[in-house]
Amino acid sequence: MTGRAASDRGARVSADAVREAGASLASEAARFAQLGWMRGTSGNLSLVVGRDPLRLVVTASGLDKGELTRDDAVLVDGDGVLVEEHPLGYAASAEAGLHARIAAVTGAGAVVHVHAMAAVEAGQHLPGGVELRDLEMLKGIGHSAHDETVTIPVVPNSQDMRVLGDAFERAYRAAPQDIAEVPALIVAAHGLYAWGRDLIQARHHTEIVEWLLRYTVRTR
Amino acid sequence: MTGRAASDRGARVSADAVREAGASLASEAARFAQLGWMRGTSGNLSLVVGRDPLRLVVTASGLDKGELTRDDAVLVDGDGVLVEEHPLGYAASAEAGLHARIAAVTGAGAVVHVHAMAAVEAGQHLPGGVELRDLEMLKGIGHSAHDETVTIPVVPNSQDMRVLGDAFERAYRAAPQDIAEVPALIVAAHGLYAWGRDLIQARHHTEIVEWLLRYTVRTR
Amino acid sequence: MTGRAASDRGARVSADAVREAGASLASEAARFAQLGWMRGTSGNLSLVVGRDPLRLVVTASGLDKGELTRDDAVLVDGDGVLVEEHPLGYAASAEAGLHARIAAVTGAGAVVHVHAMAAVEAGQHLPGGVELRDLEMLKGIGHSAHDETVTIPVVPNSQDMRVLGDAFERAYRAAPQDIAEVPALIVAAHGLYAWGRDLIQARHHTEIVEWLLRYTVRTR
Amino acid sequence: MTGRAASDRGARVSADAVREAGASLASEAARFAQLGWMRGTSGNLSLVVGRDPLRLVVTASGLDKGELTRDDAVLVDGDGVLVEEHPLGYAASAEAGLHARIAAVTGAGAVVHVHAMAAVEAGQHLPGGVELRDLEMLKGIGHSAHDETVTIPVVPNSQDMRVLGDAFERAYRAAPQDIAEVPALIVAAHGLYAWGRDLIQARHHTEIVEWLLRYTVRTR
Repeated sequence: MTGRAASDRGARVSADAVREAGASLASEAARFAQLGWMRGTSGNLSLVVGRDPLRLVVTASGLDKGELTRDDAVLVDGDGVLVEEHPLGYAASAEAGLHARIAAVTGAGAVVHVHAMAAVEAGQHLPGGVELRDLEMLKGIGHSAHDETVTIPVVPNSQDMRVLGDAFERAYRAAPQDIAEVPALIVAAHGLYAWGRDLIQARHHTEIVEWLLRYTVRTR
Repeated sequence: MTGRAASDRGARVSADAVREAGASLASEAARFAQLGWMRGTSGNLSLVVGRDPLRLVVTASGLDKGELTRDDAVLVDGDGVLVEEHPLGYAASAEAGLHARIAAVTGAGAVVHVHAMAAVEAGQHLPGGVELRDLEMLKGIGHSAHDETVTIPVVPNSQDMRVLGDAFERAYRAAPQDIAEVPALIVAAHGLYAWGRDLIQARHHTEIVEWLLRYTVRTR
Repeated sequence: MTGRAASDRGARVSADAVREAGASLASEAARFAQLGWMRGTSGNLSLVVGRDPLRLVVTASGLDKGELTRDDAVLVDGDGVLVEEHPLGYAASAEAGLHARIAAVTGAGAVVHVHAMAAVEAGQHLPGGVELRDLEMLKGIGHSAHDETVTIPVVPNSQDMRVLGDAFERAYRAAPQDIAEVPALIVAAHGLYAWGRDLIQARHHTEIVEWLLRYTVRTR
Repeated sequence: MTGRAASDRGARVSADAVREAGASLASEAARFAQLGWMRGTSGNLSLVVGRDPLRLVVTASGLDKGELTRDDAVLVDGDGVLVEEHPLGYAASAEAGLHARIAAVTGAGAVVHVHAMAAVEAGQHLPGGVELRDLEMLKGIGHSAHDETVTIPVVPNSQDMRVLGDAFERAYRAAPQDIAEVPALIVAAHGLYAWGRDLIQARHHTEIVEWLLRYTVRTR
């Protein structure tokens, strides 16, 4: 048996596991929708369910994020492409490709993408990146509340996820290597990505970055 | 049997169908009320229940939009006039006439009218129409996130629904014909109309246009 | 038996009637608290339960307005003074005196007093009164959406309810007599009063005036 | 038996009492989280459960404040140090030390710490302290609505709770002694502390100070 076959076997994710992840994503999406950060059908959430090769469960495209069920998520690979047909015929959002790229580059276990107003405003006002410093809330994303500058990168919007993914990776790798990672990205004129080791940490990073960006917009 | 009689027969909408539509409208209205967009007794929602001739079920006038029941909607014709007495004696809002006109002109299956603050602010600041461009959220109303200018028309307020309807239709037909329709209208000093093929799409169009107008007001 | 005795007898309000009114007030207060307009223990609501002589049930002082029960209201007379001891020893808020004065002067059946931020801001910016004109929302307080100027009076804050009541009455009677009444009052540096024939109309007047004041503050 | 032993014995707090306090804190924290004042894992609440020596139950560090259970709180001493291991291994937040200092200095029975945006904004704009005067809401923190200036102190942020505690105590003792205490403190670039004789009064003080600071930021 070749390594390739073994790898394929490792990648098999059961329909039950997809539904279980879908249930977690549905509950989390309803929470973000309630905050007003997933208006219309905007935004999407993902959970990593396999690493070798990379597999993610992502909320399906075109649905109301406040009313998802356990069945409203799809399984995608490291390019964000559907691994198998969804029983209800759902498509993966094109943005699944950026979720997968973020998970691959950062090792995150969960990725949140929301259209939080403060993130789009901050990206509009500060297209070169949002510098944050000397704020207690920075501790909530793993940084110091004092004497350290943390930059939330801003990248231009694109419909091509390879372009967006490359821009993300450049910005991510450009950050100082001697400090903790910055687990968030602003896509200008679009929205916010944030991630963490699991869904609850991704939620907390999202909430904290949104607070920091809102504070920045309000006090600039 | 004449075509006319057949058409009349086609138009008959059962009391059960009106109540079923009323239940959908009540649930949707409670959701918009929760967002703060139907304060007092303001705003109204409608569902198309017949096309030949046009028949809509519209939320009744003068009631709290957060507390409607299935019985709190009326059946109107293409002029927004009551087709038959409501068992509880409810009146149709005058605005039912504009709902009907929008449904007739656009083919929409559902129309939402809310007094969202951002829409009235945008109409005040930009009485000639709100131009939107290069924003990801535009995809949510069927447009491109890049290199296309979308204009949300603003028309003056009026108590005469024929005047309002004519202003709407002129603005609607003035939009470029080579791109998708713009499924929203601002009535200055008044509020927002948005529509879609069904109630869920009308909801999404409403939420997305409100986001876009709020963003416009905040960053102008 | 003298007329005086008859009048007293007419004024007797049963404990059950007080509790029933208390239940309505508790439910309504929870709704306003949810909107953020009754922070801390601020604000109070009242229902008229007798006219000859005037009797009101008013939410008790010092309690969390989001967590009232049917037992958390007191019966007061036309001066806002307790008619009889409350079984739990609750005091009437001093502001009960202004509730009673408003009910006496306007004939309102219910009075709402909330510390809505927009009202205090509007009173700060426009201490001579808030002029509103050409806004659809004015219809929600019984006025025209066109060509009529409606003024929400602003009176200085005071701890003496007779002083406040006199200021209210002067402002109320100074309004043009050929148009509908203006069912709201801003007490500067303090909050908003609004009223209606019953609790639901008082709610709607409160919501609409808050919308109008928020719009005024945002677009001035 | 020495007085020391007696004092130790008085300090013993049962696991049941810790859980009971934890249940109250969990419920209260969920309420503040709902207001958006405890984003991420930010903020913490405490209840005094013993005075001689001082003992507080404090929400555990690193948890989502909207989803705490009765088991998610720890018992600390007057320095904010864990009195005994928590069964689930939870740590006390470093900030428990400031909770304890506030309880010791003011005699408060409950302390609230939230990352309310308005408090951080006010501290940024008014680093020398926020002066409030002639506002009805001041009555909700025990002061006069007229002719008295109340200052909410602002102290610089620090990770050393002794430094923060000393700054708090200096500011607290510097307030005029002939008026009621000011039951709140802004930590610049960080958040708000407020306290009261019990959890409900601490809630009300928090809500009222947040209202006052939001008003200050909006009208300055």
